[in-house]
Amino acid sequence: MYTYYENLIPCDCGGNLLFSILPITRKKTMAELGNGKKQASPEEVHPRKVFGWASRDESGVLSPFAFSRRNTGADDVTIKILYCGICHSDLHYAKNEWSNTIYPVVPGHEIAGVITEVGQNVQNFKVGEKVGVGCIVNSCRSCQNCNRDYENYCPRVILSYNSLDVDGTMNYGGYSNMIVVNQHFVIHFPENMPLDKGAPLLCAGITVYSPMKEHGLDVPGKHLGVVGLGGLGHVAVKFGKAFGMKVTVISTSPKKEKEAIERLGADAFLAAMGTMDGIINTVSADHSIMPLMMLLQTHGKMIMVGAPEKPLQLSTFALIFGGKSLAGSGIGGMKATQEMIDFAAKNNITADIELIPIDYLNEAMERLAKADVRYRFVIDIGNSLTEA
Amino acid sequence: MYTYYENLIPCDCGGNLLFSILPITRKKTMAELGNGKKQASPEEVHPRKVFGWASRDESGVLSPFAFSRRNTGADDVTIKILYCGICHSDLHYAKNEWSNTIYPVVPGHEIAGVITEVGQNVQNFKVGEKVGVGCIVNSCRSCQNCNRDYENYCPRVILSYNSLDVDGTMNYGGYSNMIVVNQHFVIHFPENMPLDKGAPLLCAGITVYSPMKEHGLDVPGKHLGVVGLGGLGHVAVKFGKAFGMKVTVISTSPKKEKEAIERLGADAFLAAMGTMDGIINTVSADHSIMPLMMLLQTHGKMIMVGAPEKPLQLSTFALIFGGKSLAGSGIGGMKATQEMIDFAAKNNITADIELIPIDYLNEAMERLAKADVRYRFVIDIGNSLTEA
Repeated sequence: MYTYYENLIPCDCGGNLLFSILPITRKKTMAELGNGKKQASPEEVHPRKVFGWASRDESGVLSPFAFSRRNTGADDVTIKILYCGICHSDLHYAKNEWSNTIYPVVPGHEIAGVITEVGQNVQNFKVGEKVGVGCIVNSCRSCQNCNRDYENYCPRVILSYNSLDVDGTMNYGGYSNMIVVNQHFVIHFPENMPLDKGAPLLCAGITVYSPMKEHGLDVPGKHLGVVGLGGLGHVAVKFGKAFGMKVTVISTSPKKEKEAIERLGADAFLAAMGTMDGIINTVSADHSIMPLMMLLQTHGKMIMVGAPEKPLQLSTFALIFGGKSLAGSGIGGMKATQEMIDFAAKNNITADIELIPIDYLNEAMERLAKADVRYRFVIDIGNSLTEA
Repeated sequence: MYTYYENLIPCDCGGNLLFSILPITRKKTMAELGNGKKQASPEEVHPRKVFGWASRDESGVLSPFAFSRRNTGADDVTIKILYCGICHSDLHYAKNEWSNTIYPVVPGHEIAGVITEVGQNVQNFKVGEKVGVGCIVNSCRSCQNCNRDYENYCPRVILSYNSLDVDGTMNYGGYSNMIVVNQHFVIHFPENMPLDKGAPLLCAGITVYSPMKEHGLDVPGKHLGVVGLGGLGHVAVKFGKAFGMKVTVISTSPKKEKEAIERLGADAFLAAMGTMDGIINTVSADHSIMPLMMLLQTHGKMIMVGAPEKPLQLSTFALIFGGKSLAGSGIGGMKATQEMIDFAAKNNITADIELIPIDYLNEAMERLAKADVRYRFVIDIGNSLTEA
């Protein structure tokens, strides 16, 4: 029996599922969600047979899984998945580390592939086109946030997996051979953007790009700090340099200095107090933010895109003296996501990836848990996922 | 013997002295500060005899005190003080509650009066003109902050009292009959701005006005929250209404609802979740900020102008979900202060005050400690301060 947490609004931020701050009132079973009707099994609820890999329990071990998806609706785009990035969130979900996984779970929200079918209302996409799908597959389309192109902050956002879809069924992610998505949530891949190295931009890329644009950290000559050099951080460095900024990487691993500067083009690895206009903080591990706030100059902002488990502790004085801000940001809206990938293509920005076959998935997850990847695993779905 | 904390950069924020987050390395004695020379007593160090009230020890009791000030320098303005507001900071200093008071201390940084003399370089002020002096009496005038009109964030800012002046002597505040101030730090009082009700604007007013302008909380139709209805909060309500905003007061005292709405013109006293564009938080007592962050809508900002003693605790999720910010702000620069008082005069905004004679000072301080004032005490210096 599946369980579902009522009032739990998850939102992915590239490495962290965001639980709503609303109270979790009670669990609902899938039977209740289906208005008392017997819930169909994942294999038979929809007409289209799909094949993927799922985690079935808290061991997090992923294995082949047959399920189904809906037919291409009037506003839908059906995509043959060729590549899917592995975000740290996928690992959390596979192991139920956020206590909200509904098994079986098919992770994956950095999806790139080719369109195989479009619905009758779809004008903007064509069969054969290269496209991507990120963390969001639906939202209410009518609230203030949706109207302002912030679907990521819609209270009824539907994420790419482990979310209840509009028809009340659980949805499944990109570790699979095809997906059907409403056209509004599909991203055009620019011609020169490779599908494999571009896939991680759909979560890691937009998660750092969006706050940089929102907070004016896209201006030549400004000084950007990037805390943490992982999947998100390494892309933040690349965007910062493409914006013409001075970029300093802040990391507790001295051995990352060489790669930050030589491989990613950062200007510096250590920062002086009171010198930075803004900091993108990608770290999800608990850490002290006070020393980081001190790196900011007057009116500087630190933006959290990683979400440490424990509450942040912050002296008010650190904010008042210098008029500083501590902000948060979760992925980005669809318009910003398209803008991000177009900007990335124009500036030859891609993620640094390690391409893996699907049967390496469990080993990759183990390495990811130890941060042993430079900087993102991407599954070569098209060439390795076959119905066993 | 006076003591002075090296590397301690105080900054007033309307109710709270801001200790720098720099480490306090060691104490210096006044003798050391004077390069080993014997320090002159406050009465004899400068040529101009001044009379005021000072606190001499941690009892905080204020009593008559004779001291001295410098002659009017080429860039100075000399002011006969007529009124001085009582800020909560004054109480903290009088009692050494921030452990940095150098006795005797003459508090007062909401100073209003009339010019009696100007230096030879002073073109912008005339004898007889009504002027004010707030929390700042000098700064380096050359750093990036000073160049951008944020003298309040200058690392070498000199506050109106309990600060070392440029000549190395301790300075004294506005509970006195005259003051000599560099012209850059003197504020023109508009013709229709009363000196008594206008004096508190020089600290309480600018402290809330500046962040409202900085953070775009000055736009008709936006929804402003004001947390705490005291010296700062009541002025924030007035500015918010003058900007054409919807203003909601948030207070833990239900009995303040009537006065918030009927006397100050607030629109509401309780707020719904996710409805506010910004919140000005004036509360200096320790309190939980999480429920307040939940009142903000997407991209909303809460700005701390009060500084609770204990570190703020904040879940990162509260920032990321909705892309919210927590900011701080300390008073404001000189340009913003002049703009603030001009705006206030144009919109008939003054502080609600209780005017007191100087010999009521200690009783007023006791009542202030119990928040028993609507909303600011102002000392009628001109009519009640006489050399006993």
